[in-house]
Amino acid sequence: MDTALLIDDVRLTPILIADPPLLNTQGVHQPYTPRLIVEVVTRGGVTGIGETYGDGTYLDLAEPLSRALPGRSVSDLNGLFALADEVCGDSRAADERVDAGGLRGVQTADKLRLSVVSGFEVACLDALGKTLGLPVHALLGGKVRDSVEYSGYLFYRWAAHPEGGERDDWGAALDPDGVVAQARRFARDHGFTSFKLKGGVFEPDAEIAAVRALAEAFPGQPLRLDPNGAWSVETSLYVADQLEGVLEYLEDPASGTAAMAEVSAGTGLPLATNMCVTTLAELPEAFARDAVQVLLSDHHYWGGLHRTRELAAICRTFGVGLSMHSNTHLGISLAAMTHVAATVPNLDYACDSHYPWQTEDVITTRHTFRDGRLAVSDVPGLGVELDRDRLAALHRRWLDDDGTMRARDDAAAMRKADPEWVTPPIPRW
Amino acid sequence: MDTALLIDDVRLTPILIADPPLLNTQGVHQPYTPRLIVEVVTRGGVTGIGETYGDGTYLDLAEPLSRALPGRSVSDLNGLFALADEVCGDSRAADERVDAGGLRGVQTADKLRLSVVSGFEVACLDALGKTLGLPVHALLGGKVRDSVEYSGYLFYRWAAHPEGGERDDWGAALDPDGVVAQARRFARDHGFTSFKLKGGVFEPDAEIAAVRALAEAFPGQPLRLDPNGAWSVETSLYVADQLEGVLEYLEDPASGTAAMAEVSAGTGLPLATNMCVTTLAELPEAFARDAVQVLLSDHHYWGGLHRTRELAAICRTFGVGLSMHSNTHLGISLAAMTHVAATVPNLDYACDSHYPWQTEDVITTRHTFRDGRLAVSDVPGLGVELDRDRLAALHRRWLDDDGTMRARDDAAAMRKADPEWVTPPIPRW
Repeated sequence: MDTALLIDDVRLTPILIADPPLLNTQGVHQPYTPRLIVEVVTRGGVTGIGETYGDGTYLDLAEPLSRALPGRSVSDLNGLFALADEVCGDSRAADERVDAGGLRGVQTADKLRLSVVSGFEVACLDALGKTLGLPVHALLGGKVRDSVEYSGYLFYRWAAHPEGGERDDWGAALDPDGVVAQARRFARDHGFTSFKLKGGVFEPDAEIAAVRALAEAFPGQPLRLDPNGAWSVETSLYVADQLEGVLEYLEDPASGTAAMAEVSAGTGLPLATNMCVTTLAELPEAFARDAVQVLLSDHHYWGGLHRTRELAAICRTFGVGLSMHSNTHLGISLAAMTHVAATVPNLDYACDSHYPWQTEDVITTRHTFRDGRLAVSDVPGLGVELDRDRLAALHRRWLDDDGTMRARDDAAAMRKADPEWVTPPIPRW
Repeated sequence: MDTALLIDDVRLTPILIADPPLLNTQGVHQPYTPRLIVEVVTRGGVTGIGETYGDGTYLDLAEPLSRALPGRSVSDLNGLFALADEVCGDSRAADERVDAGGLRGVQTADKLRLSVVSGFEVACLDALGKTLGLPVHALLGGKVRDSVEYSGYLFYRWAAHPEGGERDDWGAALDPDGVVAQARRFARDHGFTSFKLKGGVFEPDAEIAAVRALAEAFPGQPLRLDPNGAWSVETSLYVADQLEGVLEYLEDPASGTAAMAEVSAGTGLPLATNMCVTTLAELPEAFARDAVQVLLSDHHYWGGLHRTRELAAICRTFGVGLSMHSNTHLGISLAAMTHVAATVPNLDYACDSHYPWQTEDVITTRHTFRDGRLAVSDVPGLGVELDRDRLAALHRRWLDDDGTMRARDDAAAMRKADPEWVTPPIPRW
């Protein structure tokens, strides 16, 4: 084995990045959100970069893994899982539920480990590609398309965070007109022709009205609505009935496989999920019960780019549609998403991405959407370079934080505006 | 993209290799059997090699594919499938049944194409690995074990072919003593500790007796029996009842998913298959009906090494065991099998291989089993080199053949001994 590929050093840099006041059913995004930047340096002097969740729960797992990597090859990707099981083990059972916050559905120690591994796997692939002179997609068997389509990710939002932070010029979007205006700007700036609205924020009828306004403004263009499991089965069926023929799919209307299966049985509208199925163990039951017709992949959830391709193969085999989920992320992850999406024959829908909402980044040249698509890079590795000055500045912000932003907490952020706010019960409506 | 990786030339060499008179439910192996050797030559001057079925049905598909490859990169593996669909298209529907002979279950144009693609995919991986300085397993995400276990593949057989051909020194094996003697020699020569008996040749009670004799000779060691779907559900259940606790699994006792599901419902003995599920399209129904508990992968069937890894991921997800099937093959395919097997975490059983029966090969140094295992090669590519003199000699045999050996036909071979022989009906017993 080529010793140039052996890992010499691993650097972990937690950062805080600015995030607009985007609303969801649990609350609102905080002014800053944590991410973890992973750098893998080979003996050959090549540095590969990756990115994953940066909350403390993830950092606690990333640190022992980073210490275990030196001496291994960046091509040794299948071995990362057993290694993570070994060194990131804790006293919890693999399937024990863990409170990691956010909207990821049921959390387990296994899922956290896979998210951590994903950041290392991407960094290794970047280093491997740079060393070999191959783009990451070629390390995954090669692209089957030259560009990847993304969907414009619309949010109900405030103009500014109650507690300050960076301020952008988007203004508020709290009704159908605001949502349509947001979509028009997305279409103008990035060329998106497909839109997803994050729902679960207002009463279902208000969100139905927003989707209808979008359908009127963008006739015939694909639309999605995602209330993050905030609705009862009854409410889900009511919304599905109202929006059948308007939405291309309805994402996680209700919470859990049983409820999703009930909704699915009562509507012809395809249901998508990134909540009731976020790990392979949850998949057979959901398929057997026909609870979902579209699975949202996300390499941060599923354990990296190779695992995402395996998920795609499973969907292809079982006739389940494939789309791609996004959480707040930067340009390293967007590059990784684009590479893996380019290799999957059955990418049936435009991918989600929060990227247009992120004004800060750690790469030297930000990605540019054209006609709602990103070109697939053919340069070695991911095709993005770390901006070390920006990384240092965002890490400084993390160091200076008193701890309130180091773990994402949308309910805490909401309490800045509404001191009485508690995370709403599920179902909320 | 590195132009050194672009394909400059593709060479197809059909050959005939000596094959012993091994018996199965359809007849007996002919004295010679066809294989196709694929060579992919890059602009960088590197030659990658692959191997697949060599019958005319496959050659007819391999030729247009070989003409379409020059100018493409050897890293462009995901694109091979669409290319094959495009250039190997014929007037048949993808799922139309095709008579390709042999024991592969229901054949379709799609399955033939996947088998052809597999030979090219392996050749491309070999060339890619040699160019990059990486073993094939590293191109698949890296090995998770340093050696791969194989099972000793026992056959009822004659001492010699009725019509001549090469003669080996194994003698006949037509009863329990003969089978046990064969296993002992396999154990001595190769260290195999797991054995599979190809059944469907004699009445079920005779084969039960042979398995019992093996269990007595090799107490506690894993045993398998594979009658290639020759039995009725009733017979299958009878054999399963007789051999529960003796076999580790029973392979394809009955033919088709419906019959296998019925057998499965009536026994606690795990059922394996390389017949009722040999393509992804056949998989969901078989899993839903719990027709099989062990799937036999085979990169020649499933479309190459990447697809084999996807199959493994599906089995892992659905809690179905994974083993590996073999048909008559040479050292190129054995290298490919070993590389992919090394990367799969859930390789639950020793792999099958006909290799010890093949006295001829096209590689310079034959593989050596130690303790029933093959070491995983870490040299660039597959780790085997083509012996061009041997290849030329075996191709000469193919050229000189009058056509009778160019398509495998076990029933025709049986008629040399028994002119009245016709392929037995299914179920035979």
